[in-house]
Amino acid sequence: ARDINLAVVAGDGIGTEVVEQGLLVLDSVLSGSGVGVTTTDFDLGARRWHATGETLTDTDLEAIRTHDAILLGAIGDPSVPSGVLERGLLLKLRFALDHYVNLRPGKLFPGVTGPLANPGEVDFVVVREGTEGPYVGNGGAIRVGTPHEVANEVSVNTAFGVERVVRDAFARAAARPRKKLTLVHKHNVLVHAGHLWRRTVEAVNAEFPDVTVDYLHVDAATIFLVTNPSRFDVIVTDNLFGDILTDLAAAITGGIGLAASANINPDRTAPSMFEPVHGSAPDIAGQGKADPTATVLSVALLLDHLGLHSQARTVEDAVAADLAERGSAERVRSTAEVGKDLAARVAG
Amino acid sequence: ARDINLAVVAGDGIGTEVVEQGLLVLDSVLSGSGVGVTTTDFDLGARRWHATGETLTDTDLEAIRTHDAILLGAIGDPSVPSGVLERGLLLKLRFALDHYVNLRPGKLFPGVTGPLANPGEVDFVVVREGTEGPYVGNGGAIRVGTPHEVANEVSVNTAFGVERVVRDAFARAAARPRKKLTLVHKHNVLVHAGHLWRRTVEAVNAEFPDVTVDYLHVDAATIFLVTNPSRFDVIVTDNLFGDILTDLAAAITGGIGLAASANINPDRTAPSMFEPVHGSAPDIAGQGKADPTATVLSVALLLDHLGLHSQARTVEDAVAADLAERGSAERVRSTAEVGKDLAARVAG
Ligand SMILES: CC(C)[C@H](C(=O)O)[C@@H](O)C(=O)O
Ligand SMILES: CC(C)[C@H](C(=O)O)[C@@H](O)C(=O)O
Repeated sequence: ARDINLAVVAGDGIGTEVVEQGLLVLDSVLSGSGVGVTTTDFDLGARRWHATGETLTDTDLEAIRTHDAILLGAIGDPSVPSGVLERGLLLKLRFALDHYVNLRPGKLFPGVTGPLANPGEVDFVVVREGTEGPYVGNGGAIRVGTPHEVANEVSVNTAFGVERVVRDAFARAAARPRKKLTLVHKHNVLVHAGHLWRRTVEAVNAEFPDVTVDYLHVDAATIFLVTNPSRFDVIVTDNLFGDILTDLAAAITGGIGLAASANINPDRTAPSMFEPVHGSAPDIAGQGKADPTATVLSVALLLDHLGLHSQARTVEDAVAADLAERGSAERVRSTAEVGKDLAARVAG
Repeated sequence: ARDINLAVVAGDGIGTEVVEQGLLVLDSVLSGSGVGVTTTDFDLGARRWHATGETLTDTDLEAIRTHDAILLGAIGDPSVPSGVLERGLLLKLRFALDHYVNLRPGKLFPGVTGPLANPGEVDFVVVREGTEGPYVGNGGAIRVGTPHEVANEVSVNTAFGVERVVRDAFARAAARPRKKLTLVHKHNVLVHAGHLWRRTVEAVNAEFPDVTVDYLHVDAATIFLVTNPSRFDVIVTDNLFGDILTDLAAAITGGIGLAASANINPDRTAPSMFEPVHGSAPDIAGQGKADPTATVLSVALLLDHLGLHSQARTVEDAVAADLAERGSAERVRSTAEVGKDLAARVAG
């Protein structure tokens, strides 16, 4: 009997609520499969920071490393200065555990209505680079608070880092029916980083000759996401552009309540991390209003990563069925009710 | 009698087609007003670069400086390496002429249908910083083309540069009925630049106490642009975020065929520049298919900048009337036909 050793970082706000339901569904889909789940809770986030001043210690990190995967809810609270938990905890996990593939599906499930009048079929994935770009924390400021302040932010891009994520994106595109990869960047302005990305995509394309490649500037990509999202199959892009595009992608596919993500270390030198795209939403925390679906879909990505593909499909199908029925539902269910319904659907 | 001394940079692709119509409407709205227009054509863009290798010489720049304003069509062609004309011509003009306010209205005119099912009333302006941020050209790469390449891009932000554009944005917000300013940045990741922007907005708010301020991360801003664009009044943001948000804003308000922009030097130490947001669109160039409306609306911004407010309103009203009738039109008009119709509408 196999056992999944899962690190759980429920985090702040609605994080704890949605993770509880994600775990419920995970347990349910695995019951009777011979695969067990052992969870270890990590007390990380705003509460811990207020209590101890710590964000993520070396001890925490080493303990997390021993797990097969991480399920994360949400990090962040208005009571903590902006950037402290983002840089010190969430991004630190992504960087330290080398999550260079930040995978974010953009799929419009049948029955879901988004803001677009005529979305068409929407089913793409964004492969967002996760360990470089403007996210490296290579910034600084001088004369802070004076009229002579200068604040810089450096985007760092390496051939090593770009190539590995581009290759991953090509492999994903090659495995999909349409076999199409769109590079999104801004190489007419960010010429050095942009040309590295462009040359890399051209070079790696030789290894995947059946994948069709095109290119969009990031500004143009936002246009197509609202006027013709069906044109996208796999998008590969840098850390910041990926952040922006995946929130927009979530919006057009029914909102961040449904948007899943996986922070993947494809080399498996450290555990990968699965988290909803949404934040801690302090405005609705503790009220049972959060939609756990994004977390449940992240659990499906986790199952896929661990090779449990049939269980992953079961979870996705359950979400699809649940979403298809929402339109005719009499009332909006609570976080726990949605979790319970999904857990029931996936039960073997 | 007053004379407007206008530098015209028609540029590449559809640039020449739309500028011709913009000038036609400008002449028409000024006829009988006692204000004349004298134009000087500047041969800049792909053709010139292919012929001479020049993008924008010091002589060109000094000649342009002597004008009251610049009307620009579009710059760029696939035959020129990416970045050459953008950095060497378009951005060089914006930077050299200190166009620190890049003003881009996002208005959904009655009768125009965009991609959103229920857009509501959309009428905001984006004040995009135009002379700093990731656009400064402060990037570089080592070991280019090798597996050890490192390509960096530096976003440079100064108190001087941020404060002046933030103050301009506050003044615009104060002059509008809703008096609301939204700062868009990503201060939880780009902490140095982001906190400079945030502190500056807080400080300048003291000078405009009747303006309500809020903040959105750039990723969240893209969500609201498609789910609730009515929430925006004035947006102030950095150069790159402004680039991205204004293409999205154009998309939700009927497309880049309608999106106007002004590159303003509010201190009037150099001529301001008015240009449609769209590019040179080589795929439809020379076919009379381009919509000159974005250029005509840019002409309205030009008239406003030169203090010719009643003429600016006349142009805007003509566009509004033209757009209101498009839905019932029997056929799509050519570039020249739209220009002719608008010129007729504004004729005194
Ligand atoms: C919270 C923040 C640091 C994070 C990011 O920018 O990556 C979030 O927006 C996301 O997309 O996961
Ligand atoms: C052509 C390009 C350099 C330019 C920009 O990025 O500013 C364009 O996209 C724009 O928005 O005017």
